Amino acid sequence: MTERVFNFNAGPATLPLPVLEEAQREMLNYRGSGMSVMEMSHRSKEYEAINNEAEANMKELLGLGDNYRVLFLQGGASTQFAMVPMNFLQAGQRADYILTGSWSEKAQKEAAKLGQTHIAATTQEGNYKRIPSLEEIQLSEAPAYVHITSNNTIFGTQWQSFPDFGDIPLVADMSSDILCKLFDANKFALIYAGAQKNLGPSGVTVVVIRQDMIEKAATNIPTMLRYDIHAKNNSLYNTPPSYSVYMVNLVLKWLKAQGGLAAMEQRNLEKAALIYDVIDNSNGFYTGHADKDSRSTMNITFRLPNEDLEKTFASEATKQGMIGLKGHRSVGGMRASTYNAMSREGCQALSDFMKEFMRKNG
Amino acid sequence: MTERVFNFNAGPATLPLPVLEEAQREMLNYRGSGMSVMEMSHRSKEYEAINNEAEANMKELLGLGDNYRVLFLQGGASTQFAMVPMNFLQAGQRADYILTGSWSEKAQKEAAKLGQTHIAATTQEGNYKRIPSLEEIQLSEAPAYVHITSNNTIFGTQWQSFPDFGDIPLVADMSSDILCKLFDANKFALIYAGAQKNLGPSGVTVVVIRQDMIEKAATNIPTMLRYDIHAKNNSLYNTPPSYSVYMVNLVLKWLKAQGGLAAMEQRNLEKAALIYDVIDNSNGFYTGHADKDSRSTMNITFRLPNEDLEKTFASEATKQGMIGLKGHRSVGGMRASTYNAMSREGCQALSDFMKEFMRKNG
Ligand SMILES: Cc1ncc(COP(=O)(O)O)c(C=O)c1O
Ligand SMILES: Cc1ncc(COP(=O)(O)O)c(C=O)c1O
Ligand SMILES: [Mg+2]
Ligand SMILES: [Mg+2]
Ligand SMILES: [Mg+2]
Ligand SMILES: [Mg+2]
Repeated sequence: MTERVFNFNAGPATLPLPVLEEAQREMLNYRGSGMSVMEMSHRSKEYEAINNEAEANMKELLGLGDNYRVLFLQGGASTQFAMVPMNFLQAGQRADYILTGSWSEKAQKEAAKLGQTHIAATTQEGNYKRIPSLEEIQLSEAPAYVHITSNNTIFGTQWQSFPDFGDIPLVADMSSDILCKLFDANKFALIYAGAQKNLGPSGVTVVVIRQDMIEKAATNIPTMLRYDIHAKNNSLYNTPPSYSVYMVNLVLKWLKAQGGLAAMEQRNLEKAALIYDVIDNSNGFYTGHADKDSRSTMNITFRLPNEDLEKTFASEATKQGMIGLKGHRSVGGMRASTYNAMSREGCQALSDFMKEFMRKNG
Repeated sequence: MTERVFNFNAGPATLPLPVLEEAQREMLNYRGSGMSVMEMSHRSKEYEAINNEAEANMKELLGLGDNYRVLFLQGGASTQFAMVPMNFLQAGQRADYILTGSWSEKAQKEAAKLGQTHIAATTQEGNYKRIPSLEEIQLSEAPAYVHITSNNTIFGTQWQSFPDFGDIPLVADMSSDILCKLFDANKFALIYAGAQKNLGPSGVTVVVIRQDMIEKAATNIPTMLRYDIHAKNNSLYNTPPSYSVYMVNLVLKWLKAQGGLAAMEQRNLEKAALIYDVIDNSNGFYTGHADKDSRSTMNITFRLPNEDLEKTFASEATKQGMIGLKGHRSVGGMRASTYNAMSREGCQALSDFMKEFMRKNG
């Protein structure tokens, strides 16, 4: 058995080792129940406790009260691209989208198939290097909601602070940075995130939804796409992806034990700095894709002087136990995903490797 | 750590112990990759191999050739209730449903929200004790498809042989009996099953679909609900529920090692007989819900003389390590789910317990 690698995959992504170890210990027999969590009825007391605990932990970490629900759904963030407009974009209305990358484009395109959309801002020019300034955002008149992507997994940009549009519902795809830092979740009408980056394994999508949104969600759509049905049934309308929810709850408990969002923010800033500092002090050997004031702490995108060096970089890194560093084709170069579960040691190792690689090839 | 119980849950349900043990061994490091399957990119060679192997194993077990695809989707069988009509019930068409239990009712109701349906037969009278005879089935003129539920999880009935409607596409919800016996899968246009009963953990829905159905599936619906998109992308359009697919593949390998569907059928018949024989020889102490010629080998439903005895039965069984025996409220009494992964020992233990319980309380 080889050692575990430093896994810089963009998602599914690295998980905290203690979480995997706990899951391993409990695999055949969850707390004396005589069965695996995978074998437990979703109507059992044990599973209900996991489900409720996961909701409570999520709300606690986000600082949310009784006017919010947390749902554990299936279908990934891609299904949310359709569910959001199906539930909240009525005929005659318009929904505003701010485009900061491929995922916001996909969200907007899916909504445009179902209703009218307006692009309130886009930073597509220059290949999504930045988050728009508040002044650039041109809302339509009374949109049904405004949709943003808080962190752009592919391009490596991240909203540094969130806009406030008053009474207009703010909806965010936080798939790649949920729980990475302190922020005011109470500003959002709806937040969704595929779990497979910052929350756990794939197979469960976390939806944080404000009570008034549940009340105005559409009811004339397929049952499984109705937020009100899932909220009323406590995410147990049908069989939930129970093992993924269990894993998410273990990750949430781990996050709390690490000190919650304040501690995560500090740690994520330090981790990202280990890598951004090498880029900034490389005299142009490494070039970051994102503008400095839009940089993500979760996905760090950079290029090398040429594609041959980029290939060598990836393969030498792999040999040294650092995997998943090849960037997405729409940016090229490298991408280091440094989610909550990526250790400081992993980032230090990558930082050291980058310096050494530059020394040898610069 | 207590021992493992005999788990008669209806789903999520018991899994083969060797499968859980393999998952446990590989939890921190899948075959020297240095990571868990949960942490692997769904675009990696390792995960693609799992995905492809799962499709190939499923097709091999079902005896299907190149004119079929197997998809691994999210959302449970309940999402299929909507996806089937959204993809195949066009305006002006009608879809036929044969009602044999609560799940077929739900499937039909979901379709009726989206288009026109016709109830081709129902055995609701008498509380779904049986499967209709061929003569009872009255199809509408040229329906878009005919939908059946092959095994009725709640009522404990099961189609003993499948109808053949010629060119009319036959669609089956096989959530609770897929791969339990030999049958001609080539008769079906589409088969779907939530994995959490006979295939693995919850979180993944297996869809077996014939090539011509993929070609005529709707394209003007949300992307994530399009069968053609998932088929074209090899179930990797977006992030799949990868750990659940991995577990399903382990279960499929286990099934093959057990001797495939012929061996499973033999074993399931013997397992079910251990329990049905006690019912039939109890002089009315135990009464089966299903008519004898409609009995399921997967869910065995029976009542005791009164509700007090039923409660005592469940609690004493639990004390003896047999759990999940309480029936669904729409039938009352007891239900023993004896899916592929339930061992003969478990059924023997229940059979012995039933005899002893009758001796003491009869
Ligand atoms: C920001 C963002 N949104 C949406 C998605 C799509 O998520 P899923 O694969 O769960 O549908 C991703 C996946 O990488 C993402 O990074
Ligand atoms: C025959 C049948 N169909 C559908 C379902 C619903 O499945 P899911 O919970 O995966 O939506 C069940 C669940 O018990 C079932 O037994
Ligand atoms: Mg992006
Ligand atoms: Mg991505
Ligand atoms: Mg039923
Ligand atoms: Mg059931």
